Amino acid sequence: MEQLGTVTIIGVGLIGGSIGMALRSERLAARVVGVGRNAEALRQAVDRGLIDEATTVPEEGVRSAEVVLVCTPVDRIPGDVCRAAAAAPGDALIMDAGSTKRKIVEAVEADPSGRDSFVGAHPIAGSERSGAANARAGLLRGRACVLTPTGRTPADLVRRARAFWANLGARVVEMSPGDHDEVLAYTSHLPHAVAAALALSVPAPWQSLAAGALRDGTRVAAADTDLWTAIFRDNRGPLLKALGSFQDRVAALKYAVMTDDADAIRDWWEQARKLRTLLEERQSPPGGMD
Amino acid sequence: MEQLGTVTIIGVGLIGGSIGMALRSERLAARVVGVGRNAEALRQAVDRGLIDEATTVPEEGVRSAEVVLVCTPVDRIPGDVCRAAAAAPGDALIMDAGSTKRKIVEAVEADPSGRDSFVGAHPIAGSERSGAANARAGLLRGRACVLTPTGRTPADLVRRARAFWANLGARVVEMSPGDHDEVLAYTSHLPHAVAAALALSVPAPWQSLAAGALRDGTRVAAADTDLWTAIFRDNRGPLLKALGSFQDRVAALKYAVMTDDADAIRDWWEQARKLRTLLEERQSPPGGMD
Repeated sequence: MEQLGTVTIIGVGLIGGSIGMALRSERLAARVVGVGRNAEALRQAVDRGLIDEATTVPEEGVRSAEVVLVCTPVDRIPGDVCRAAAAAPGDALIMDAGSTKRKIVEAVEADPSGRDSFVGAHPIAGSERSGAANARAGLLRGRACVLTPTGRTPADLVRRARAFWANLGARVVEMSPGDHDEVLAYTSHLPHAVAAALALSVPAPWQSLAAGALRDGTRVAAADTDLWTAIFRDNRGPLLKALGSFQDRVAALKYAVMTDDADAIRDWWEQARKLRTLLEERQSPPGGMD
Repeated sequence: MEQLGTVTIIGVGLIGGSIGMALRSERLAARVVGVGRNAEALRQAVDRGLIDEATTVPEEGVRSAEVVLVCTPVDRIPGDVCRAAAAAPGDALIMDAGSTKRKIVEAVEADPSGRDSFVGAHPIAGSERSGAANARAGLLRGRACVLTPTGRTPADLVRRARAFWANLGARVVEMSPGDHDEVLAYTSHLPHAVAAALALSVPAPWQSLAAGALRDGTRVAAADTDLWTAIFRDNRGPLLKALGSFQDRVAALKYAVMTDDADAIRDWWEQARKLRTLLEERQSPPGGMD
């Protein structure tokens, strides 16, 4: 595999920092430049080896970039991508790492400088512990990364994007931005909403009598408020559909319990148990990573 | 601490097997007898050191017991307790380990032989992986164990029950059977119902694009179907109330997303995040166990 020249990461948090760390430790790029708003945080990211150098001025950071990765919250991504596209070399590949895709891709494609250099990307990895302090080089290894090229995306950019994520150890999947958002509403945004609703339902004084079910079921509710507010707003339609499906399942159990229908409760649980068992098998391929 | 004589465990699964293992490894009992329906499984439990000896006949197993622990599914506990009480020495302490308490305690107290020897107990520990094969001696260490004595329970029995669980490393809490069931509906039964509803909501073909949020959020949906059908039926009233509270929280988010009310979404998430942070602090006391 050929080494990349300069890779510029805009937003050196959990995802951006982990990608920087992986690019450096595996020598996939000659130079990794970090762009952020907080100079002190950037200095620490350099000290910790997440990036080689840093700047608070995006135009400076992307000036000689071969690849630019925008790893900011979803509501800032379109602006950050277009600003980078306007200042980066004409042949730079610009990608994001946002949890939603349709609105981002639409906004970038409406911009003349964004359109010809952008491939939407979503590496499906993360943690309720955000921030560069939790970055680790192996975060993406074995994970799926969804690319969302459109009819307008130059084929050569898609090839370069695919190679970039594959070199980081991710399993690359291509989907339309709309399909991505519908699937992720169910596989990620709904589980986050459910975890938070569960955390809200248990009176605080009773928490001391909770066991693993409540702890695991609410883990991701510890995630950043602004980040998730932006994701929920950005993916409203699909999220509402997913919430509706979920509400139907809860209502079905409630009715079965209310009518003390043993067979209905058993069938409901058994179907859930089978789906959960399938999920466990899919998430743990033989010899695969966590 | 004084060593117990014979402790008899009826139902040598995850909980019963783990207690047997702990009693033996810490020499808390002179002899641990296991009672079950499957002779081959009992033989394996002896081989694996969970119990010293075994029988498929409860009356034989409890004949010289100082303590009897009934670790069968909640719908079988009252019958198993009364049968043991009728055959055990008059001064034996009989306890269960069921996830619900009100119906069990009422049924046992309605029985003349059960009434004077029983203390309801619920060690709050478990796993979606049931069965003796997953037993481990440390399962109860640092966990809460709720005792539910009533006005009819002899005080001396309660003292012995408290000492028994404390010696296993559990933190003993006393509550009425009804209070126990209301709290556990929220801290355990609801999280199980929510995990299963979440597993049911995600179409199987999309599971490959799931990350940690879905996996963690559905983990306990892998638990045994009959076990959870019995718990949901046994604790209908409190569970329906908990499901109602939860439905209200989901509906509040849905309305905030539908109306694209950024402040409402942010406040909703932020309150959940704070409760989840509090839970994490409570569940991880300094120097405490997992």
